[in-house]
Amino acid sequence: MLHDLINVDQGIHDTSTKLAGLNEAWTASMRRLAGGLSDGVDVVTLNNGRMSLEILPTRGLGVWRGSVDGIQVKWDSPVERPVHPGFVDQMRRGGIGWLDGFNELICRCGLGWHGAPGNDVIRDADGKVLSEQFLPLHGRIANLPAHRVSLEEQGDTIAVHGLVDEASMFGGHLRLESTLSTQIGSSRFSITDVVRNMGAQPAEVEMLYHCNVGRPFLGAGAELHTAATEVAPRNEWAAEGMKKWNVFNGPEVGYAEQVYFAQSAADTSGWGIAVLADAESQHAVCVRYDTSTMPYFVLWKNTQAEADGYVAGLEPGSSFPNLRTVERREGRVLKLSPGQSVTFRLSMEIAIHPRDVRNLLDEVHALQDVSPCVVHVVPKPQWV
Amino acid sequence: MLHDLINVDQGIHDTSTKLAGLNEAWTASMRRLAGGLSDGVDVVTLNNGRMSLEILPTRGLGVWRGSVDGIQVKWDSPVERPVHPGFVDQMRRGGIGWLDGFNELICRCGLGWHGAPGNDVIRDADGKVLSEQFLPLHGRIANLPAHRVSLEEQGDTIAVHGLVDEASMFGGHLRLESTLSTQIGSSRFSITDVVRNMGAQPAEVEMLYHCNVGRPFLGAGAELHTAATEVAPRNEWAAEGMKKWNVFNGPEVGYAEQVYFAQSAADTSGWGIAVLADAESQHAVCVRYDTSTMPYFVLWKNTQAEADGYVAGLEPGSSFPNLRTVERREGRVLKLSPGQSVTFRLSMEIAIHPRDVRNLLDEVHALQDVSPCVVHVVPKPQWV
Amino acid sequence: MLHDLINVDQGIHDTSTKLAGLNEAWTASMRRLAGGLSDGVDVVTLNNGRMSLEILPTRGLGVWRGSVDGIQVKWDSPVERPVHPGFVDQMRRGGIGWLDGFNELICRCGLGWHGAPGNDVIRDADGKVLSEQFLPLHGRIANLPAHRVSLEEQGDTIAVHGLVDEASMFGGHLRLESTLSTQIGSSRFSITDVVRNMGAQPAEVEMLYHCNVGRPFLGAGAELHTAATEVAPRNEWAAEGMKKWNVFNGPEVGYAEQVYFAQSAADTSGWGIAVLADAESQHAVCVRYDTSTMPYFVLWKNTQAEADGYVAGLEPGSSFPNLRTVERREGRVLKLSPGQSVTFRLSMEIAIHPRDVRNLLDEVHALQDVSPCVVHVVPKPQWV
Repeated sequence: MLHDLINVDQGIHDTSTKLAGLNEAWTASMRRLAGGLSDGVDVVTLNNGRMSLEILPTRGLGVWRGSVDGIQVKWDSPVERPVHPGFVDQMRRGGIGWLDGFNELICRCGLGWHGAPGNDVIRDADGKVLSEQFLPLHGRIANLPAHRVSLEEQGDTIAVHGLVDEASMFGGHLRLESTLSTQIGSSRFSITDVVRNMGAQPAEVEMLYHCNVGRPFLGAGAELHTAATEVAPRNEWAAEGMKKWNVFNGPEVGYAEQVYFAQSAADTSGWGIAVLADAESQHAVCVRYDTSTMPYFVLWKNTQAEADGYVAGLEPGSSFPNLRTVERREGRVLKLSPGQSVTFRLSMEIAIHPRDVRNLLDEVHALQDVSPCVVHVVPKPQWV
Repeated sequence: MLHDLINVDQGIHDTSTKLAGLNEAWTASMRRLAGGLSDGVDVVTLNNGRMSLEILPTRGLGVWRGSVDGIQVKWDSPVERPVHPGFVDQMRRGGIGWLDGFNELICRCGLGWHGAPGNDVIRDADGKVLSEQFLPLHGRIANLPAHRVSLEEQGDTIAVHGLVDEASMFGGHLRLESTLSTQIGSSRFSITDVVRNMGAQPAEVEMLYHCNVGRPFLGAGAELHTAATEVAPRNEWAAEGMKKWNVFNGPEVGYAEQVYFAQSAADTSGWGIAVLADAESQHAVCVRYDTSTMPYFVLWKNTQAEADGYVAGLEPGSSFPNLRTVERREGRVLKLSPGQSVTFRLSMEIAIHPRDVRNLLDEVHALQDVSPCVVHVVPKPQWV
Repeated sequence: MLHDLINVDQGIHDTSTKLAGLNEAWTASMRRLAGGLSDGVDVVTLNNGRMSLEILPTRGLGVWRGSVDGIQVKWDSPVERPVHPGFVDQMRRGGIGWLDGFNELICRCGLGWHGAPGNDVIRDADGKVLSEQFLPLHGRIANLPAHRVSLEEQGDTIAVHGLVDEASMFGGHLRLESTLSTQIGSSRFSITDVVRNMGAQPAEVEMLYHCNVGRPFLGAGAELHTAATEVAPRNEWAAEGMKKWNVFNGPEVGYAEQVYFAQSAADTSGWGIAVLADAESQHAVCVRYDTSTMPYFVLWKNTQAEADGYVAGLEPGSSFPNLRTVERREGRVLKLSPGQSVTFRLSMEIAIHPRDVRNLLDEVHALQDVSPCVVHVVPKPQWV
């Protein structure tokens, strides 16, 4: 079964059909929000019988939030609801206007660039400026709507397919071909994103998955368990917290974010893993990602007060979230020739039973045990 | 009776219900505009049997225009219809893009700042820059839509309640909780706005109500009657007109706006008053405001040609519309601790009978009589 | 017959009526796109029995694309579908954000300015800066929606009328009163645009019609046939191609656009003509324009790879697409006094039979034969 929810070319925008599997083993539908900053935002709700996800075609197919067995998987941004891109001026506040719409569980940063805002300058060998472009924070993709979305059932698997174009005349044309899939009764979902260079000239690509988690997974004493071959603080302030870089505090008013960069260890299939578990190991969120295209991992510790956005970010990426100029210098920017594509794969798994949490922690620790890790206590020059 | 018109969380956006009181003593409904720059703008029309108001949830609950006994209360901006915020780029024209959507009878400027665009720089005691942010003209609130709007009838009173969030990750979270109310058969309405700091850190607040009036209230010889303890011109050009600072000319091509700042006198209840009456005292608009939170008043004389926007602005505010840096320096920026709120109260009353106009003028003159007023003939350094 | 499709003031937005002439000799209707960057874009389809046109009220009444006898008249931009102006931030990429929404067959550039982005500085005789405004690429009109659109049938003629306002408080008020008309069974349509200064002060106007054509009209060996009295390359790079300035290559990866400026020759009625014909003279697009208000013509050779936008631009204009500062200096900016208007007239004719193509070429060559042409091999100082 394949059902179109959005198809601009065919005039399809279906907010009336309630899709369901046999015996309602799964359900799916799309609604359009009205009013506030959410006006015009489409939300696809996919329920696999155990886990429910709300996907946002209007915001680059980000995942707003989820729930498993009634436990919410999300965080509470001061921006309380999905924001229509028409209300987001990325150029605001010196190029960090992106933050006006930031509240998803999974938010893509990319496609052409992500990371800190700034002037991306390309020079020739003599230092002459060849091109210069101001890049606002985290790129365009989270504020670009999908022009095609469909839902597919295949055996036990339900998938949401979508297409998002990041294009401009004289500005390239990257296409995101995304599939989010899950299985009936599962507490896990997978994302397979093909980013294709539709243009006729080589194109740069940077992708980072901003996976953002709050309570009950995050809390005082919560820990990020990951397997890395190298870890370093992003800056001096993060370096000060290096001893407990992967341990979280409770909410703290005025806490300034601490960010850690890592090179991921990979299992025999080439996948990396990061698990956020609460202090009692009762609840965990596990992000797995294909390190062949996303060898890097960023931990965003932002344990501010609840009202300001108490959140941990688990962020696998193709590069670090520095200005693209830095990433290019260090050879971490992907370059696609015309027609070429790169595939990013990740999954998110929610564990809400101690045994399942334990299994995840065992898995990540086992991987770390066979992967020696260099821990830098100061920022690594090649990474910043 | 309480009826939800907009509730994003509950999926309510009601443009079909025609609300009415007993015997249609009052009526209310919401419609959505389609086409042009107004596409997607919601308009709530509230008619109390004598006065009709059109309120704009999509534009921060501003009041587009009104009418009393068939006489329109409005002005004619070159921007002829309500503009959806998606069409307003506040960064345009050096930060005055706000003017692309400016045409309301009452338009809020705020919440975090209002006034002239510029770089708001905060320095420490040694002059070192702690923060710097470009603030476009008049803040965000007029271009933020309400996520919740309801209509309430209580006895003879009909009220429109609304919530608007001005938030950003790493950018604070102010909430406007607004109530506009009127009574059956009245030519007056009141606004009570609670601005709450939803964040966990102290937040700055500036609010100014841009109340803009044209004919028949404005015209050659029209006068602004207000009770002030101090009045000063904003700049040299305004100083040139100081002798007739409160008297209006007819429309004049190329007239450059003149702006006057005042410290308001307050009656025994702490309220200030400003009345715009035409030369023959046949029509008047009266703005009353609670000086405990809005001690300042700005008169915007903009008697340009009709086609360019012939208008008088009566603007009570918590501060003057200078760059926030100036207002902070002079101690006029409100600071709310986490959870704290400030309440702004004002009312607008329309008088279209000579006797009613006379009563208003008597009231304002009586207040001025007991309140000595210092008139500065040059700008006051602390105010600019 | 006159039928309103959009009338904001009257609450008309008609996407349900299927208009048609006797025996369906012509048909017309409006639909609203949903999803992707096209969400909320209205498309008026007008079919005269032979030729079909898709007009975009939401994008300043541009003409998205057409077809004649089943042959498509369009080009393929990397931006694949009409883009709602809410998704276009003209300030992006140093002021060329306009390109994010650029894909029409006919796209107006104007009304207050068009051309390259930059700071438009006006100085007095002593060089003192009187005003300074950053003007993003190609002006506002293509990203302003029409607030009124109607369809009229009069005899054999069917016309789409529309109004678009380009206004801002303290920023003037220009109105576009547009009529696009065609006749039953014709392969030609005409545009008559009245631009009116609704403000009370003089206003500057610049207009350019970006008529963009791809295959089968464009291809290797295609030629632009026009009658000019003067032609010059825009810059050194264009000068390099001067010998074959009007001959097109096939698609070429990385081809940098070459642009040529011309002063148009006019026929006895004062009209200019430009014809793009393929190498075999099988297909041609002819643009005619009234040189009394559009004396200039720009040829945009952009024979990039297909995927990057293989396209030829035939662009009659009231001025050249330089920064307005340049055009003002050279006296090419129109100035309208209050209430004054200027009328721009052009037509587009599609020829898909060799005989019709030949007739067009004969016409343009005959006009050139009686109009001596100066060909500059380097940029003309007064034009750049």
